[in-house]
Amino acid sequence: LCARVLLEHQHLRYNPLRDTWVLVSAHRMKRPWAGQVEKPPEEHIPRYDPRNPLCPGNTRANGEVNSDYDSTFIFENDFPALQPDAPDPGSDQHPLFQSKAARGICKVMCFHPWSDVTLPLMKKHEVLKVIDKWAGLVEELGTKYPWVQIFENKGAMMGCSNPHPHCQVWASNFLPNEPALSDRCQRAYYKKHGEPLLLQYARQEAEKKERVVVENSDWLAVVPYWATWPYQTLLLPRRHVLRITDLTTGEREGLADIMKRLLTKYDNLFEISFPYSMGWHGAPTGTHLKEDNSHWHLHAHYYPPLLRSATVKKFMVGYEMLAQEQRDLTPEQAAEKLRNLPEEHYKTREN
Amino acid sequence: LCARVLLEHQHLRYNPLRDTWVLVSAHRMKRPWAGQVEKPPEEHIPRYDPRNPLCPGNTRANGEVNSDYDSTFIFENDFPALQPDAPDPGSDQHPLFQSKAARGICKVMCFHPWSDVTLPLMKKHEVLKVIDKWAGLVEELGTKYPWVQIFENKGAMMGCSNPHPHCQVWASNFLPNEPALSDRCQRAYYKKHGEPLLLQYARQEAEKKERVVVENSDWLAVVPYWATWPYQTLLLPRRHVLRITDLTTGEREGLADIMKRLLTKYDNLFEISFPYSMGWHGAPTGTHLKEDNSHWHLHAHYYPPLLRSATVKKFMVGYEMLAQEQRDLTPEQAAEKLRNLPEEHYKTREN
Ligand SMILES: O=P(O)(O)O[C@H]1O[C@H](CO)[C@@H](O)[C@H](O)[C@H]1O
Ligand SMILES: O=P(O)(O)O[C@H]1O[C@H](CO)[C@@H](O)[C@H](O)[C@H]1O
Repeated sequence: LCARVLLEHQHLRYNPLRDTWVLVSAHRMKRPWAGQVEKPPEEHIPRYDPRNPLCPGNTRANGEVNSDYDSTFIFENDFPALQPDAPDPGSDQHPLFQSKAARGICKVMCFHPWSDVTLPLMKKHEVLKVIDKWAGLVEELGTKYPWVQIFENKGAMMGCSNPHPHCQVWASNFLPNEPALSDRCQRAYYKKHGEPLLLQYARQEAEKKERVVVENSDWLAVVPYWATWPYQTLLLPRRHVLRITDLTTGEREGLADIMKRLLTKYDNLFEISFPYSMGWHGAPTGTHLKEDNSHWHLHAHYYPPLLRSATVKKFMVGYEMLAQEQRDLTPEQAAEKLRNLPEEHYKTREN
Repeated sequence: LCARVLLEHQHLRYNPLRDTWVLVSAHRMKRPWAGQVEKPPEEHIPRYDPRNPLCPGNTRANGEVNSDYDSTFIFENDFPALQPDAPDPGSDQHPLFQSKAARGICKVMCFHPWSDVTLPLMKKHEVLKVIDKWAGLVEELGTKYPWVQIFENKGAMMGCSNPHPHCQVWASNFLPNEPALSDRCQRAYYKKHGEPLLLQYARQEAEKKERVVVENSDWLAVVPYWATWPYQTLLLPRRHVLRITDLTTGEREGLADIMKRLLTKYDNLFEISFPYSMGWHGAPTGTHLKEDNSHWHLHAHYYPPLLRSATVKKFMVGYEMLAQEQRDLTPEQAAEKLRNLPEEHYKTREN
């Protein structure tokens, strides 16, 4: 009965990672859509473009020349939002006009020398290289900075201005809002229940199965119970892991496997290169490395904007910005759709 | 010195209404943009379209016929996210799988019988009618519901699927995330400083002037110190007012005046019908009507997505979704740009 109530009637669900609620109104999927239609993602991207600043051997905006890389390639963002040496605006401020120094570093990582591949189309050993480099950057920047945010904006719809497969890594001298909130929530849960929030959650979802999209012996990808974006997923290790740097070789291989499978399903959903923003959250670094962070559990969030088709996205606007996030299909419906998709990529299936 | 540091170097600013920080990196405006370009808003909208469900006398999706209205027109949303009678999913839940009943009502309000006008192009007495109806709906729905969210999604870019000038009003049996957070912050500030946060803020901004966009004897529109969207504004009454229902006749006239002037500047910025989501926040209603809500101060938020031109918006994606919001020009720069724009609408200037 309860499951049916949740499927057919609007209700609120609690997000324990953010201490917020989401409004779920599955019946809204029935409304017709006469609004904005997006351009579908570009299908024909040249493998090498002499004018693309991310391709091997090309010259970037600041005159630097990329190496002739044949795997991943890391460089400093030419227009960084965070620089290492910004001055302090000074204290002694009115409580309504408070500012603080922000220092950090912004890096870009190309996943592959070719512009016409994406993670799901790359070989497993190539994805593994990306994972190793992610861990390497968190290791390196984490000695100095309390937060190292790895994120990928994929697709023009998600503000990505270059089709070459890449992600960004922004490290900062402060704990940003989202990880700070997540830290608070995980800490409080651990204190109350004696187990890390997301470790318990992963176990529960592995048993319940209804929100699982894909899994292997080390990892689990689910549409979280509290998902706000239509096809949002949460990627979790089964073992208690604090940071990406702590993953064993086996777990990194398992991660390459599950990422390829999850992202293939995403691409297969509307048979396009699926847009999303994704990023990793793990225990803070820098001076936090010496503290007890047992309440943390490593995870990646995937936030894809599409709702109905390759060209109709979910608009998180008016009510969502001013009051509360609202979704139009249940997380269970989204998980089932993704779960039932083939694990072979639509682009390689024909061949 | 300090002002110069804030203009030229990245820094964080505190948002006291949400207890969060925003990363301001003004130097990022220099980066070239090769990313997604939006379709500019439709310029030629027919005054009356027989197929538009919002026009006077037309039939809507559910078969109902609109009255032949000549001013505002209110009806229930044909695909509501909130309905009055959803069942309770039941309590006794695992802390990671919590749900709650959501009940409410969703209304739509047309501002004008013509599809080819918007608020800045309407006459002042017509805008005043809209304001009176807003107050009327809060009065009516507020007897039953703790939160009545008035919001306008303007433009296809903001998920609006109908060009006819209109807003929505969603009333709920719960206090949504955003007002709940704002309530907490305003309450704590009042307790600590003995004055409503936004009343003190309005006075300070009226003195400082550098973030004021437009003002009159009853109202003030500023780009708030902590704005996240490039041209975000905050509209505040000068007198301590808890709810839109409490505005005097004079204040309503002043509001019609300042809305017309602010929205005209918005349209003049890129000489298009400026897209945004806006909404009102005032003290909660329902059972809260009997409580002391002196910490509250009525205000409207305007969140416009555009950054560089009529077709290049700010993408709140990767870093913003996963870590913290980031802006590319300072609030003072945005305020100055808006302040210096003419108060006559570009569409009526030629004539
Ligand atoms: O109600 P509408 O206009 O159909 O829908 C629009 O506003 C809603 C409330 O902000 C959003 O949930 C939708 O994504 C948006 O398209
Ligand atoms: O760094 P890029 O790719 O130039 O920019 C993109 O990602 C950033 C970080 O999420 C956002 O702030 C920008 O709005 C977006 O266009």
